[in-house]
Amino acid sequence: MLPPAWRWLYDYVRAKERLVIGLMSGTSADGVDAALVKVVGSEPKRVEVMSFTTLPYSTDIRDAVIRLSQDGDVETLCQLNFTLGELFAEAAQEAVKSAGLTMKRVHLIGSHGQTVRHLPPPKTASERGGKGEWGKIGSTLQIAEPSVIAYRTGLPIVSNFRTKDMAAGGQGAPLVPLVDWLLLHHRRKTRIAVNIGGIANMTVLPPDPSPEEVLAFDTGPGNMLIDGAIWHFTQGKQTFDRNGEWGMKGRVQKTLLSWMMNHPFLKQPPPKSTGRETFGEGFLKRILKRAQRWGLTPHDVVATLTAFTAQSISDAVNRFILPRFGHIDEVVVSGGGAKNPFLMSMLGVKLKPAVVVRSDALGVNADAKEAIAFAVLAHRTVMGLTGNLPSATGAKAPVILGSVTLP
Amino acid sequence: MLPPAWRWLYDYVRAKERLVIGLMSGTSADGVDAALVKVVGSEPKRVEVMSFTTLPYSTDIRDAVIRLSQDGDVETLCQLNFTLGELFAEAAQEAVKSAGLTMKRVHLIGSHGQTVRHLPPPKTASERGGKGEWGKIGSTLQIAEPSVIAYRTGLPIVSNFRTKDMAAGGQGAPLVPLVDWLLLHHRRKTRIAVNIGGIANMTVLPPDPSPEEVLAFDTGPGNMLIDGAIWHFTQGKQTFDRNGEWGMKGRVQKTLLSWMMNHPFLKQPPPKSTGRETFGEGFLKRILKRAQRWGLTPHDVVATLTAFTAQSISDAVNRFILPRFGHIDEVVVSGGGAKNPFLMSMLGVKLKPAVVVRSDALGVNADAKEAIAFAVLAHRTVMGLTGNLPSATGAKAPVILGSVTLP
Repeated sequence: MLPPAWRWLYDYVRAKERLVIGLMSGTSADGVDAALVKVVGSEPKRVEVMSFTTLPYSTDIRDAVIRLSQDGDVETLCQLNFTLGELFAEAAQEAVKSAGLTMKRVHLIGSHGQTVRHLPPPKTASERGGKGEWGKIGSTLQIAEPSVIAYRTGLPIVSNFRTKDMAAGGQGAPLVPLVDWLLLHHRRKTRIAVNIGGIANMTVLPPDPSPEEVLAFDTGPGNMLIDGAIWHFTQGKQTFDRNGEWGMKGRVQKTLLSWMMNHPFLKQPPPKSTGRETFGEGFLKRILKRAQRWGLTPHDVVATLTAFTAQSISDAVNRFILPRFGHIDEVVVSGGGAKNPFLMSMLGVKLKPAVVVRSDALGVNADAKEAIAFAVLAHRTVMGLTGNLPSATGAKAPVILGSVTLP
Repeated sequence: MLPPAWRWLYDYVRAKERLVIGLMSGTSADGVDAALVKVVGSEPKRVEVMSFTTLPYSTDIRDAVIRLSQDGDVETLCQLNFTLGELFAEAAQEAVKSAGLTMKRVHLIGSHGQTVRHLPPPKTASERGGKGEWGKIGSTLQIAEPSVIAYRTGLPIVSNFRTKDMAAGGQGAPLVPLVDWLLLHHRRKTRIAVNIGGIANMTVLPPDPSPEEVLAFDTGPGNMLIDGAIWHFTQGKQTFDRNGEWGMKGRVQKTLLSWMMNHPFLKQPPPKSTGRETFGEGFLKRILKRAQRWGLTPHDVVATLTAFTAQSISDAVNRFILPRFGHIDEVVVSGGGAKNPFLMSMLGVKLKPAVVVRSDALGVNADAKEAIAFAVLAHRTVMGLTGNLPSATGAKAPVILGSVTLP
């Protein structure tokens, strides 16, 4: 018999259906996505999205998060960890409310938190020197204090998903592929699931695959550079290219595009992961300098950056996927990028003859996919199941992800 | 029936005796203390220390930790979190080895981690402004990645002990009082347990107290200023005043002592907690400037700083304890300060007629007390028992502390 505080674990494992909240804030840092998900079966077999809400960050918070991921100080980090805990708890409350339910009906929360640093293990010892022995270790840091979320919501929570994979020698990312595998594979078709958030990543799903056959990796920037350019040109009045309107009015500048396509990350073979350290402010500044030198209009810059996202994705397909899998039937797009028609049409052209669709067409809300994924991963931790795919992260073994905090 | 990965929890709860490792690195940041403890009974009733080892930090690591707690950057924090995870795992291995056992025999690890920031909730809204809304929230941050410790040792681990108490409105410190209460209270005597680490804290234990009757708080600096001065005068060749030798050769300078005794923290009523933010480098620099102006020798400075630690402790007794509890029978000292005879003799004089003893005299290893405490607190979390004393931390309620990471 378990003590009262732990009996939820016993009940959870025995239940046939559970309500789980997934919380996520991506590298775009625009707010907290919250998905309330009904999880059926133990693997699980299937999920059903009961509600999905986004709690936008205030400008203050967004600025602080972005500053932290570039060169922030530890005091701000410490305070922001608790503040984001409050916001994540609020987002969870909203998701439950918008489903017309109360917190008491929910069993569990899975929170990805907000990444403020992601430093994959260096490939060579010299690659990250200069800081003594600890410079040579891979590390990652997600914030949004789980104790605050657990205390405010009264629910057990799984958080800190990426670190165990890294402890096992992996890149700590991407983690969504296991969920892509569970929810998006097809019995006879070869599919690629592409999520275009701040960073873009893809999961290759051969017909009826075993976990070992799933390949997944980050392809490079998703909306990060486009968002950054829009923010720059509007002085923060707009934060993304709504409906691809800016991009559509511009022309893709080939020389700038080729220069960006020379980025060494694109040539690096998978597994690989990246973040704002590589495709953030620093890289954008270099792009904007060149664009100015060559007299590009803001619209041209956004068009070229959109082409860069599309082409880095199709480049990854040509370079790493086709030689190994022969052909692709469908490309299933999720994330904010799926709402940019300019980007979607570019992808359609570049990835032909594969069919490009939004994940909604397959029953997975395109905006909610990552939040759903962390609900599913939390579920797996409580069920004592592993959550990483070594073929995606490069880890030595599958491991049980995350830390559990009691309410 | 729980899934295999969770069955240890069931076994743990049913066992009569468990072996638990407590890991701690204090504000002195000199290394990782590891205590292997046999825990008997559920509250628990009693603990028995099987081994105690300290894995010293290299100069590189110690410097980085101290820099982080003053004004470090997020990238170093992220990497150091993983590096300390490795060192904490190594310390755990050493404690087990020195007891002549193997990791397989051990049930659980409790890791306090290394505090890099501790910012108690401000008393007034204006007290911590300037950073938008998140400046007004209490927060704390301990590092030494639990996923790394769990993966390396193959044991479940409880970590992140302070945040839940803070989420419940507490100061997140001190947490050791609950363990003082369990292990050091007396049926008829009034005792004070004083731990002199980097910071000094005290737990007041009236005869046979209920948890609500236990009062505890930080009194101010422990060894932090003494260590800092020794480091300064020897250019890092010595890091603490071994056997109180420096202090004994000096003279206490009254004016400097009174100036330090005017520090507002000392007058603040409990519950209260403090750290390197208040009594670290910044404060030491101001002291050394004054000392130089008045022509004090290095020995005089160390003697005066030692007197400051002793007097801030006796001042707390006179100001907050005697008015409420009438008298004190015994003062039980643990932590590095218990090994400084100069400091111990000063305490003996200032606290008369109370008897000052080392905690070893009561069967609790003076060096190991904090490490033991986090083994006991981890045990309580797994047993589903609360770990904070609201009378000590100021929290609204007792809560179950920490996050559990599976191996």
